[in-house]
This record gives sequence, C-alpha cells and structure tokens, in this order.
Amino acid sequence: MDRAAIPNVLAERYATAPMRDLWSAEGRIILEREYWIAVMKAQRELGLPIPSEAIESYERVKGEVNLGSIMERERVTRHDVKARIEEFNDLAGQEHIHKGLTSRDLTENVEQLQVYRALLETRRKAIASLQALAERARQWRDLVITGRTHNVAAQTTTFGKRLSMFGEEFLMQCQSLEDLIERYAARGLKGAVGTQLDQLSLFEGDTAKVEALEARVVQHLGIGHRLKNVGQVYPRSADFQVVSVLCGLASSPGDFAKTLRLMAGHELASEGFAKGQVGSSAMPHKMNSRSCERINGFHTLLKGYVTMASGLAGDQWNEGDVSCSVVRRVMLPDSFFAMDGLLETFLVVLSQMDAYPAVIDRENTYYLPFLMSTTFLMEAVGQGVGRETAHEVIKEHAVAAVMALRQGEISQNDLLDRLAQDSRLGISLERLQQLLEEGRERCGNAQAQVDAFAQEVEAWVARYPEAGGYRPGAIL
Amino acid sequence: MDRAAIPNVLAERYATAPMRDLWSAEGRIILEREYWIAVMKAQRELGLPIPSEAIESYERVKGEVNLGSIMERERVTRHDVKARIEEFNDLAGQEHIHKGLTSRDLTENVEQLQVYRALLETRRKAIASLQALAERARQWRDLVITGRTHNVAAQTTTFGKRLSMFGEEFLMQCQSLEDLIERYAARGLKGAVGTQLDQLSLFEGDTAKVEALEARVVQHLGIGHRLKNVGQVYPRSADFQVVSVLCGLASSPGDFAKTLRLMAGHELASEGFAKGQVGSSAMPHKMNSRSCERINGFHTLLKGYVTMASGLAGDQWNEGDVSCSVVRRVMLPDSFFAMDGLLETFLVVLSQMDAYPAVIDRENTYYLPFLMSTTFLMEAVGQGVGRETAHEVIKEHAVAAVMALRQGEISQNDLLDRLAQDSRLGISLERLQQLLEEGRERCGNAQAQVDAFAQEVEAWVARYPEAGGYRPGAIL
Amino acid sequence: MDRAAIPNVLAERYATAPMRDLWSAEGRIILEREYWIAVMKAQRELGLPIPSEAIESYERVKGEVNLGSIMERERVTRHDVKARIEEFNDLAGQEHIHKGLTSRDLTENVEQLQVYRALLETRRKAIASLQALAERARQWRDLVITGRTHNVAAQTTTFGKRLSMFGEEFLMQCQSLEDLIERYAARGLKGAVGTQLDQLSLFEGDTAKVEALEARVVQHLGIGHRLKNVGQVYPRSADFQVVSVLCGLASSPGDFAKTLRLMAGHELASEGFAKGQVGSSAMPHKMNSRSCERINGFHTLLKGYVTMASGLAGDQWNEGDVSCSVVRRVMLPDSFFAMDGLLETFLVVLSQMDAYPAVIDRENTYYLPFLMSTTFLMEAVGQGVGRETAHEVIKEHAVAAVMALRQGEISQNDLLDRLAQDSRLGISLERLQQLLEEGRERCGNAQAQVDAFAQEVEAWVARYPEAGGYRPGAIL
Amino acid sequence: MDRAAIPNVLAERYATAPMRDLWSAEGRIILEREYWIAVMKAQRELGLPIPSEAIESYERVKGEVNLGSIMERERVTRHDVKARIEEFNDLAGQEHIHKGLTSRDLTENVEQLQVYRALLETRRKAIASLQALAERARQWRDLVITGRTHNVAAQTTTFGKRLSMFGEEFLMQCQSLEDLIERYAARGLKGAVGTQLDQLSLFEGDTAKVEALEARVVQHLGIGHRLKNVGQVYPRSADFQVVSVLCGLASSPGDFAKTLRLMAGHELASEGFAKGQVGSSAMPHKMNSRSCERINGFHTLLKGYVTMASGLAGDQWNEGDVSCSVVRRVMLPDSFFAMDGLLETFLVVLSQMDAYPAVIDRENTYYLPFLMSTTFLMEAVGQGVGRETAHEVIKEHAVAAVMALRQGEISQNDLLDRLAQDSRLGISLERLQQLLEEGRERCGNAQAQVDAFAQEVEAWVARYPEAGGYRPGAIL
Repeated sequence: MDRAAIPNVLAERYATAPMRDLWSAEGRIILEREYWIAVMKAQRELGLPIPSEAIESYERVKGEVNLGSIMERERVTRHDVKARIEEFNDLAGQEHIHKGLTSRDLTENVEQLQVYRALLETRRKAIASLQALAERARQWRDLVITGRTHNVAAQTTTFGKRLSMFGEEFLMQCQSLEDLIERYAARGLKGAVGTQLDQLSLFEGDTAKVEALEARVVQHLGIGHRLKNVGQVYPRSADFQVVSVLCGLASSPGDFAKTLRLMAGHELASEGFAKGQVGSSAMPHKMNSRSCERINGFHTLLKGYVTMASGLAGDQWNEGDVSCSVVRRVMLPDSFFAMDGLLETFLVVLSQMDAYPAVIDRENTYYLPFLMSTTFLMEAVGQGVGRETAHEVIKEHAVAAVMALRQGEISQNDLLDRLAQDSRLGISLERLQQLLEEGRERCGNAQAQVDAFAQEVEAWVARYPEAGGYRPGAIL
Repeated sequence: MDRAAIPNVLAERYATAPMRDLWSAEGRIILEREYWIAVMKAQRELGLPIPSEAIESYERVKGEVNLGSIMERERVTRHDVKARIEEFNDLAGQEHIHKGLTSRDLTENVEQLQVYRALLETRRKAIASLQALAERARQWRDLVITGRTHNVAAQTTTFGKRLSMFGEEFLMQCQSLEDLIERYAARGLKGAVGTQLDQLSLFEGDTAKVEALEARVVQHLGIGHRLKNVGQVYPRSADFQVVSVLCGLASSPGDFAKTLRLMAGHELASEGFAKGQVGSSAMPHKMNSRSCERINGFHTLLKGYVTMASGLAGDQWNEGDVSCSVVRRVMLPDSFFAMDGLLETFLVVLSQMDAYPAVIDRENTYYLPFLMSTTFLMEAVGQGVGRETAHEVIKEHAVAAVMALRQGEISQNDLLDRLAQDSRLGISLERLQQLLEEGRERCGNAQAQVDAFAQEVEAWVARYPEAGGYRPGAIL
Repeated sequence: MDRAAIPNVLAERYATAPMRDLWSAEGRIILEREYWIAVMKAQRELGLPIPSEAIESYERVKGEVNLGSIMERERVTRHDVKARIEEFNDLAGQEHIHKGLTSRDLTENVEQLQVYRALLETRRKAIASLQALAERARQWRDLVITGRTHNVAAQTTTFGKRLSMFGEEFLMQCQSLEDLIERYAARGLKGAVGTQLDQLSLFEGDTAKVEALEARVVQHLGIGHRLKNVGQVYPRSADFQVVSVLCGLASSPGDFAKTLRLMAGHELASEGFAKGQVGSSAMPHKMNSRSCERINGFHTLLKGYVTMASGLAGDQWNEGDVSCSVVRRVMLPDSFFAMDGLLETFLVVLSQMDAYPAVIDRENTYYLPFLMSTTFLMEAVGQGVGRETAHEVIKEHAVAAVMALRQGEISQNDLLDRLAQDSRLGISLERLQQLLEEGRERCGNAQAQVDAFAQEVEAWVARYPEAGGYRPGAIL
Repeated sequence: MDRAAIPNVLAERYATAPMRDLWSAEGRIILEREYWIAVMKAQRELGLPIPSEAIESYERVKGEVNLGSIMERERVTRHDVKARIEEFNDLAGQEHIHKGLTSRDLTENVEQLQVYRALLETRRKAIASLQALAERARQWRDLVITGRTHNVAAQTTTFGKRLSMFGEEFLMQCQSLEDLIERYAARGLKGAVGTQLDQLSLFEGDTAKVEALEARVVQHLGIGHRLKNVGQVYPRSADFQVVSVLCGLASSPGDFAKTLRLMAGHELASEGFAKGQVGSSAMPHKMNSRSCERINGFHTLLKGYVTMASGLAGDQWNEGDVSCSVVRRVMLPDSFFAMDGLLETFLVVLSQMDAYPAVIDRENTYYLPFLMSTTFLMEAVGQGVGRETAHEVIKEHAVAAVMALRQGEISQNDLLDRLAQDSRLGISLERLQQLLEEGRERCGNAQAQVDAFAQEVEAWVARYPEAGGYRPGAIL
C-alpha cells in the first residue's frame, strides 16, 4: 500500500483481532491453502495419484504469504485465483492443487468458511454479553426505578428487570443466531454450473467417489450441512440470512444503549468511565454516553448492510453471475466488523456502567404519588366513599399538583398533603404515606423475572463455557 | 367509508381470502373477542367470580361485528380498546371482559396471533409451491439446456436441475421459516410495564395463579413459547425476524422469476397463459412475463418492509412507546399481503409455465461446439498432438468461428468443420460429431440432483399434507 | 368491496382529503378523462377530424365515475386501460379518445400528474409547517433553556433557537423539494418504445405536429419540463428522487419530534392536548407524546419506501417492463399518504405544544453552576489566582458537588457555596451569584438566529401565500 | 498498521487517486491545517493578535504529516482533535491555532469540505461519462435494433436511441447533483450548541466580527452557502441528500449495464475487452459482462448506504450527539468510493463496448414480420378486404408461425410466405417484402432524439470543459 492507503475503518478502529484475522488477505490465503491441502488429501485417499511428499511440501509453505508477489502475478494473469495457485505451487515446488476444481469450488467454500467462523466468533461474544448482562441484572435486581412508557413515568419496576427485558430480547436473537449456525450449509464441490461435471470428469464418472470427496471436504470445513443443488454459486439469500440475523442480534444492545442514554440524561445511570477517569475536567458533570451512542451507530450500519444483502437476494440470473462480487467483498466483512465492534463496545459498557440510587430514589419520590392514585382510590372506596366522588377528588388534586409543579409554584410533589386535607376523601396523611411506602417497593414479579433470565443465561454459558471467560479489551 | 375510500391495493388486488380475513378489521375483532373469552374461562377456572352464563352471552354475540358502531364509540372515548370493550359488553349485556388486563395485554397478544397464523398460512403456500416446483423439476429432469454464467453459455445442464437449484434455495428459506415458527414466543399477560403487577393485583399476589392464567391464555393462542421478560410491549426485533424471514423466502421465487424472464427473452420458455389464452392478438409472439415481473415486484416491496422493520429494532425507549404503532399497522399486514400475492403468483406461474424444446435444442446446437472445446483438445492430445499445438489450433478456429458468427459471415456454428479441415489436429469430422453428440447429453449429476430435491420435498409434503392439496386461484 | 375489504390504513386514518382524492380510484379516472379531453382538443386544433360536439359529449360525462362498471369491463377485456376507454366512450356515445396513444402514453403521464400535484400539496403543508414553527420560535425566542449534547447539559441556548435549528433543516429540505418540483419533467407522448412512432403514424410523419401535440398535452398537465428520450416508461429513478426528497423533508419534523419526546420526559415541554383535554384521568401527569411518536413512525415508513424506490432504480431492462408496477402502486401513494399524515400531525403538535418555564428554570438552576465553571476560572485568574491552581480548585469542588448530588447527599447544586468557601479562590458568594445571573441569560447569538429564521420563513410564505392560511384538522 | 491490516476494499481496488486522496487520513489532516490557517488569517485581519510569522510557520510545515506521531498523542490525550492540535503546534513551534473554536467548529466544516469536493469530483466524472455516452449514441444513431418491452420484441428502435434513453436519465440525475452542489451550505463557526457563544467570547461580543470571521472561513472552503441555525452539528439529513443523490446518479449506469448484460446474452453487443484481449482462451465465445455486473454491484452498495444515511436523518437529540459518528466515518467515504468506482467502470465500458450488427440484423429479420402485422392489416384493408377478415387471417398465420418456430418445425420466420399464400388476404409476397423492408428502418423520431441528447450533452461539456478531457484508467 502506498502513502495514501485507506484502511477499513471498521476493522482497524473497532473490530478485534480474531475477527480481523479471519477477513484479512493473509488470513484468507491461509484458509484457501488449508482447503487445497484438505482436497488433495481426500483425493489421494480416493485414489488420485498425488504423492504424500507433494502434500507435505504444500503443508510446509502454507504460512508463507507474500501479498506483493501474488499481486504481481495477478497483474500478469489477470485472474486472481490463478495467481494464488501459481504462487502456492511455486512455493511448494509442486503442481497438485486445484485438480478438478473450478474457481468457485475454491472461493465459495472458503468464503462460507469465513462466514461460518465469523458466526461462531460472534456467538462467543454474544454469550459473553449475555453473561455480563445477567450479572448486572442480578446486581440491580431489587433497585426500584420508575418504569416509563412514552418516556413518561408509568409504574415502578426494578433496574434489574429493565436489564432482563433487554436480556430476553437478546436471548431471542441468540436463538435465531443458533438456528442459523445449526442449519448453515456449504456449497461443496459442484463445478462450473453446479452439476459436478468437472468432479465427475476427474473421477471418470464415479459418482460415489465424487460424493466421498465432497463429504470429506465439507467435513474439513466443519460446516454441518451440504447443499445439493446449486449453480455456479450458492444462493445469495444465504448471505441475507446471515446479515439479517446479525442485525437482529444488534437490536437488544441497541435498545439497551438507547435507554441508557435516556437514563444518563436524567442522571439515573451512566455508561461509566474506564477506571481512573473522571469525565471532562472542565465539566465534570458531563458523562457523555459515547459508547452507547456508538452501539446505536453500529446498528445503523448493520441496517444498511441488510439492505445491501437484500439487494442480492432474488437476483440470480440463470446459474449465476458476479454482480454480487463487489457487494459481498464489502458487505460480508463489514457486517461482521460492525457486529464485532458493537459487541465489544457493549461488553465494555456492561463492565463500566453505573447506577445512581440517590437520584433514582429522588425520581421515584417525585412520581410515586401520581403512580399510586389508583391505590388511593381503592382505599377511599374501601372506606365507604363513593367511587365517582373519590375519582373526582383525586383527579382534581392530581391535576392541581401537576400544574403547580410545572408552573413552579411547588418543587416537590405535594399530592399527599392535598388529599389528606380534603375531607371528602377521609384518608389521613399517615395512611397515605403508609400506602405510598408499601407501593414504593411493589414491582410485581420483577425480581422473579430477573432470576428467570439469569437462569436461562446460565444454561447458555454452560453450553458454551469458552464464551464465559471472554473479557473485552480497551476501546477508543 | 365514504366515496373516496382508498382500499389496500395489496390486500384487494393480490392477496387471497384467508390472509385478508386474518388482517381485516372484522377478523381482528373476532380474534380479540375469542381472546377475551379464553381469558375469562381461565379466570373463572382459577376462581374469579365470572358466571358461566356471562361467558355464554359473550360467546353468542362474538360474531356480531359492527365497525361503524365501534368507530362511533371511539370518537367519544378517544380510546380504541375502550370502544371495543364497551361494544362487546353492550352486545353481551355483561361487564366481565378485560379484567386485570391493560390494553397491551390484549393487543400485543392478538397481533402476535395474527402474525403467527399468517406465518402458518405462508408456510402452507410455501410448501404447496415446493411441491409444484418439484413436479416441474421432475417433468424437465432430462431436458438438456445450455447453462449460463454471466448470462453467457457456460456448460450444459438440465431444465429440471435449474429448477431444483431454485428449489434448494426455497428449501433453505422454508427451513428458516420453520425455525422461526418453532421459536416464536407470545408476550403473554404482563401488565403496564411488564412486571405482571396488574395480574398480581387481580389475584391478590398469588403468583401461581398468575402463572396458570398466562399459561392457559398462551395455550389458547396456540403459540409454543412464552416470553418472560418484557416491558409494555414485546421486543420489536421479533417483528424484524418475521419480515426478514419473509423477504428471505421470496428470494427463490425471485431468482426463478428473473431467470424465466431471461429465458422468455430467448423463447426457451415462458410463464404461459391461462387456458384458452393465446397472447396479444395483434402480436401473438408477445408472451409477456407479467406474472414473473410481478413476483420480482413483490420482492422489492418486501425489501422495503424489511427496512421499516429494521427501523423499529433497537429503538425501544425504556419500557416502550408507540413510535412503532403506525409502522406496524402498515408493515405487518402489507408484508404478509405481498408475500401472499407473491406465492399465489408463483403457484400460478408454476402451473402454467411452458418450455420450448425445439428452441432449446437450437441454442444447444449453436453453443455446443464452443462448450466442447476442452474435450476436443483432450482428444487431440490423446491422438498424439502436442498440447500447446492443439490448444493453439482450437483457439484459432474458435475465435474465427465466433467472429464469423458475430459479423454475419455465417449463421450456424461451423467450428467442427473448421477443426476437421485442419490437418494439424487430425480428428475427423465424424469423430468430432460423435464427441459432440456424447457431450450433448452430458450433464454430470444433474438428474440425480433433481431426484434428491424431489425427495426432500416429499418429506415436507408428508409433514404438512394439508399444504399439498393447495391450488392457486385466478390472478389479475 | 365485500365485507372483509381492507382499507389503506395510511389513507383512511392519517392522510387528508386532498391527498386522498388525488390517489383515489375516482380521482385518477377523472384525471385520465381530463387528459384524454386535452389530447383531443389539441388533436382537433392540429387538424385531426374530431368534432367539437364529440369533445363536449365527453366533457359532460367526465364526472360520472362508476367503478363497478369499469371493473365489470376489465373482467371481460382483461385489460384495465381498455376497460376505462370503453366506459368513457359508452358514457359519451363517442369513439374519439386515445387516438394514436399507447396505454403508457396515458398512464405514465397521469401518474406523473398525480405525483406532481401531490408534490405541490406537500409543499403547501410544508410551508404552513414552516410558518407555524417560526411562530413558535418567535414565541420562545428568549426562553433560556439548557442546551444538551450527548443528551447531557452543555451550554445555555433558547427554546426558540432550538426550534429554529430544526427550522433551518426544514428550510434546507424545502429547498430540495422546490428544486425537484422545478426540474420535474413529464414523459409526454412517446409510443410503445419511446420513438413516437405511433404519434408519427397518426400525423403521417409530420414531426412538427407531433411536437406541437406533445407540447400542448404537457402544458395541460402543468408540468414545466418534458423528457425527450424515454423508452416505454419514464426512468424509475425519477420516482426515487421523489420519495427520497419526501424522506429528507420528514427529517426536521423527525428531529423536532424526537427532541420534544425527550423534553417531555423531563417535563420541560409537552406536545399538548386538544383544547379541553387534560390527559389520562387516572394519571393526569401522564401527557404522552403520542403524536410526536407518530411523526417518528411516519418517517420510519418513508425510509422503507425509499428502499423500495431505490430497488426500482437502475433496474430497467431494455425499453422497460412492469416489474415496477406493483411496487409503484403501493409505494407512490403510500409515501405521499405517510408524508401527508406526518405534516398534518406536525402542524397539530405545533398548534398545541406547550413549554413549562418553571421546570425549565429549575433545570437551568441545577446545571448552571457547572456550565459556568470556565467563567469562574477566568474570574479567579483575573483576580490574580494562578491558572493551574484555579483550575484544580474548581475541578475538585465540581466533582464533589456532582458526586454529592448523585449520591443523594444534597439535592440542590451547591457548587457556588463550595467555591465561595474556598479561600484559595477568593471570590465572594455575591460575585459568584452575580456571574451566574449574567450567565443565565447568555445565549450568544441565539435570538438573532431566531429572527433570521423567521425572516426566511416570511419570504417563503410571501412566495406561497395560499400555504400561509392552512390549518390542520383534528387527528386521531 | 500491523501485518493483518485490512484495507478499505472500495478505496484500494476501485476508486481513483483523487477520490482516495480526499478521504485519506493524510488528505484530511492537510485540509484541517489549511482550514486552521485560513481561520488564523481571518482572525488576524479582524484584529486578533496573531503574528504573521506565526502563520508562516504553520504554512511551512502543513505538509509534514506523521500519522504515527499523531496516534501516539491520541493515546495520551484520548482526544483526537487535541492530538492533532498539539502535533501541528509542535511542528510549527507556535500556539495560535484553534482559537475560539470547539472541536466541531473544525471537524464539521472539514468533513463538509470533503463531501463538497467529492461532489465536484463526481460531477467531473459524470460529465465525462455523459460525453462518452453521447459519442456512442451518435456512433450507433442509425443502427436499427429490435426494441423490447417485458424483455420481448416490441417495436424497432436504434441502438443510439436506446443509449440516449439511458443518457436522458443520466442528465436528469446530473441536474439533481447540480442542484445539490448549488444549494450545499456549510455549518460555519457556531460553538458548542450553535449559538456562537464561543466565537462571541473571542471577539468580546462583537457580532459583526464574528459574522465577518465566519464569512471568510466559509469563503475559504469555497462552499456557496452558510447555515445560520445549527446545534453542535449540521443536520444529518444533509448527508442523506448527498448519498441519495449519488444513488440516483448511479441509476442510469445501472440501467445501461443491466441492458448491456441482456444484449450480451443475445450476442447483440458486449462490453468489450481491453485492447489485445480476446476473451477466455478455452472459451473464446465467452465475453463475460464482468464490468457491467460490477456497475450493478456498486449500485447495490449505494442503496445500502442510502439506508444508513436515512437511519441518521430525523434522529437528532437536542443539540446533537455522536451516534452518527461511526456511521458517517464509513458511509460518507464508502459512498463516494463506490460512486467513483462505478463511474470509472462505466467510462471503461463505454470506451470498450462493441455492437454486432450482423447478429442484430438476424434478430430484426426474425421478429420483423410479427412487428409489422398491423401494417399488413392496414394494407389489406386498403385493398378492400374487410377489417375483421384481415385481422382473423393475420392472427391465424401469426399464431401458426410462432408455434412452428417454437416447436422446431421451422427455424426462420415464414409469416410472409404464409400470408402471401392465403388468397383471402390478396397481398403478393413482393408487396409484403416491400412493406417489410420499409418497416425495417422505421424508427420514428429515434435519430432526432439521439441528436437532441447529444446537443444537451454538448452544453454540459461546454459548461465544464475540464470534465470533457477525462479518460479512465485501467480497471481490475
């Protein structure tokens, strides 16, 4: 790359090393070489005259990746796969790779392998996120907050329950990712138009050997299923499934991030800072939700990649063409880089976020009298006051209290005083306060719901213990 | 509706009655009433004082839907759910519905029920399409066609195999639909902010009864799973999953339709006509692929609905708001209407399409000599001609034949004559023709692949026999 | 329509009558008939033997629209344009319409006319919105609020300035709408593949007459420009321009609505209620931003329609096909209905919204000490305190104040007290309070910016005085 | 960058140097430094104490860009703008830049400058494309081809006219680009929340000086307009305008490419090869439309970037946040890279494409008898045959001819023979052939339309003569 080389900003600023390696030029060349070696081994076992020493020669040099030399060859041959074949042959001093293969018998499978491994890596980080989210939910299981609908106070809940709500959405999307991984199918060796003619020619029409070769090659990839009927390419709607599952998976972090940005605006919580940081020195009150905003940004990117992927779906002409090529070169890695950056950021926020119980309590106190008005009504009715009367009285005072607060006549909610002073209702201030205090902690099944979420997460972590230990690195 | 009422064009022109009924105002009101009745029955069984006669009264009138009367009530109450409660109560002469429910405890579940049933209806038509596609694939299992990549002749295949290629993509997407149906989860009864406070109040804190009530209600819906942690609403990324699975499902019909439009341009095949029709009387050659074009159009719509659905995902504020309301009112029914119209059109095309073997054969004959050049090369090498020489000679003549065809010097491919006359190659015209004839039918594993596809379809039809019998109606 | 007829929900619930009329089946038929009449008049003037009495006969019946009768004819002819020709001819007792026209010479132009008039109607409402927004900006020109970045207090501004900020974005998008209207070009009369062969046949090769006919017909449409080179259809990227301009236009109302929803969460402002309403009687504090949420919902819809429109752009095969047909039937009217509903809702919110100066002032007071810390620093430096020392002292107290507020030790910002008590700084409480009061009103150029915005709006209203008077109706 | 650095594939493989330079890290730093220098010059002229030697010091070192050193600083300061300030100051040995600016007063304007210059560069290539397209249209102005609708033969046109059809669409989109450039407005110097408080502080409240400073700075940028009311950021719907105009501009190349891919499938035309190339040596007939497919691919990418851009529009919270940051870092450069690659590829295809008149003529001959059936009908009627009879006879033979062709009974269209032999019609074969020959060249106004297009292009090239000379480089 010359002086003005432009890096892939998603890869370089946001994605982590395992994801970068998977999609790097070097990483891909090594995947291709391993694939060719696996093909040769299978071909040899099935009787093709490929000496084991030849295979060993390839094995020895498979890690020697020289991008400049390959690009040199491409400029001459004007064919990228040919250039990579020649390079590998010359390094090994052999000519045994790529027998009976068309270019797509190589590239489609290797690209699917990249996608498949990227899905596994995504699952690893997703489960780590689930675990971190469940820990936070448990931590704040009993911290009562003012639940909001329409961004307005509605009923009390707990912060842990709010997090579990996003958690269950995440579980739903993880299951969708899991289903996708489970059913993902490799194209296999199919030849120029999908009929396996090229493979059959190699084995002189022996369909059993062609079948055996393909089975072993797909086994090498580690992908659980194999497509039977394809053209030159695997159906591009498979890519759409991948990208739309990623976009779905980003939804729960998206909701979480948006809500945390809202809470930060009320100083109820913040995404926190790296240890030692204390915010802008000029404005220490300003704890910007930069990472949460970034999570929402990654999601916006993924929505665009979904549009690109949908643009390729249902657009195959005959046995296929390459109008998808430039799109897939951009969309597939960039989707995974964005997803990777999103999950990494999510993990960092989960590890650093903070809640401010005092401010939360202040908000609860402010709104609670309004949220309890139905309870007061029932109490009055229980005491023998007519339902219509009670309703009228409470509404009258509630409206007055709201107006007084909004017009600055009062700065604390004085609804209880107003009600206590109204003889039509006949409830003492003490009783009202008692009811209020009881109501303060009344969050329905919230805590049990948190427990249920945490339990489900445990089952996932038990299934994928390697994910459990994952810790995010530092982010910009 | 007044004189200038605007119908939903997707529903009225393209969708079929079962799908329309599901999303019609009347259909929805009946679903709601059945839901309320199911809730009352469960509440009664769990000890709430709801007389069985009351439930019977509701049962009796549940089919009496008067939209005008409901709209009248809504204008007064300014609350749509309230209006529908009052109407049902007045009809039944009772006041027992909606106890312990918030509006969303009704509407979320009923909307999910609409989605779920619409998914089942879609699966029915999808499997019927699979069956029809498999029949066509079997019909043309052995019809050799010129396979194309980059829209240019590449290698022979069979028409049945081409259809199976689209068929396997359809299977892949049907599996994704199946996975979605399998994991689909209802919101259940959760109250105003998701903590089940309202339900617990109804049963005086008896969590077991709340659990039992919810379980029975979701069982009534027939949806296999239940969400545990939600806010006011179920996560909108669930809708994104639905719409993106629909869009994925449209991909194979999309590919099929696009390819059939291409084939029609070469007169190799056509989407056919309704029985008795013979095309435009002025221009009988003009068999327009209108239905295939429409299939591609439906898919374009679905891609837009995916963008709408992704716009709602990751945008939940706190326990939820209604910024999704107008979007879901449009996107959910319209996605299903578009999908329904697409599958109906697909089924019609599958039932009427035609192939023209004579034209197909003409194309094969035109291209076959080019497609066989590698075989000729190997024959010459086998006869002792040097590989480089043979390659040079064949290329020289092939280029000349292409140029002569393009420049109008010849109108039939004469490559065989050119090769036979060149003594450097030493292959007789007879031998060349023999090789060509052998090559004409050489389609690798194409036929076996068709059989494999047909077999998989049989398994699906066996699983869903009610789908097998479905026949499309007439389309515009 | 039968019992289960499904209305277009955007048209019926949200759009206004002028927009509905434009896209209704009846409205369209009248546009078509007026178009045919204009064509006949021009043809007559150019010498074609069309009696003026015939034209009068058509004029007389053009308003008699019987959709059922037309649909009856379509079922027989299986051709929608033919059905409408026959109906009009039979009503008039003449056979002079549609001479020398292909179907698309009719439908393309009439659809463009619908688009064009819908653009004009949109402009009218957009300018009315500008005016209402400018009124509000002027009303709250001097109302100081706490400006926020990252949803966190940053610097003071005024509410009028915040509205003007959204106003300028609206002006930018109005200009884009204006540019589009200005350059919009009609397809004109071009025949089956765009060469005007059909028109030339009618006038026996007289190109001048064909030119004159087309010019007059486009003049009838009132569209300023004419395309010269088209195929069967006008380029579909013209539709993409339209829908993307609409989506752009929705952006400023979108930003406004989102910000008002945020402000409502802090009780700084609300979208208000219709006169007489006082919110939920049970929870009078709950002034939900339903209309603002709906505005954001409409925008989400428009973003999906943009995806549909982009799906048609760049997808023309040869001289055109109808894979765009079902897409345009849905996307064009629905985009305009959504836009119309959005602007109507925007106008309602602008007419009913409210600000709560007391709550605003409370917020200012809470944050102002933090926002002024730089001023305090400069004051101290001016008094001879070392810059580093001053900075250290202020930061120390600011952090302490923030922490005390978050941890509930204090409920009012006491930074001034803390600073006044620190002898290292040497500024008296009176001086600090004086600086604070000066700072409270310091909003830079905010007010002048409001005036500039209002002035620009005046110029627009002066240019389109008919828009100025527009008042929204009631919304659901 | 370490070993596994991932390049931006759009920039490195497809975009050209001017576009890469504009968006490279180095290019941006130089733009920033020039901007700071322009600000200092204006500040000095307006009386701020900035020595001219200081400015000269900055001028001297502005080209010394050391990305590594800047990144080193960013790791310490954790603030990217601060790091770049320090680097520039240290290089110059001065501390005069960035006075009275917030970070966004720098970055917003510089990013808008990148966008603006990228728009100008795009316009340059667009006009060069127009010119190349007009040349091709003129070249094939009179080459009669079979026009197609629904991908089926419809009426004759000329190849030049077909290209002009795409040309006029391109003109329409160029005008939209032109309008955008014309109205594009810079954010200017506005301070932290848009009120210019920071600028006013610098000039001690002198609004005239603030106004003068901003005017000069925007003049330096070369952008014609200035926004008055913004928050922290300029409205993100301005980016949506940019990306959607790019996507619109790609539509005509998209239509062109798709149609050329179709024509290549019929061997009527091809996108050609670089000089000296002769296609695949194994399959010389296989002239793949790889570049045209790539053009369609670039357009698919742009549609996705439109979705990203629309995702940012209408999503501003208060005075702004950075949830747009990662999106804009990706979407803005990548949109322009994709557009640049698209136009470069378009120019290459235009320079290398070829038409095959002999094949075109063969197609015309095959379809012409069908396309002329209306003319034959009129001839018969002119000779006294009843209209209904003539219609019936022609239809009978036309259907028979179509069927015979499709069923392989004949390989040439023999409709004329069939008609001549039918005594009911009474037209001789000679007369039919004469009519056919006359019809062969009858393309309406096609040629005049080509001329009109070419003339419009000339006006554009005259306006932007620097664009006229542009020639594309080699593409991969």
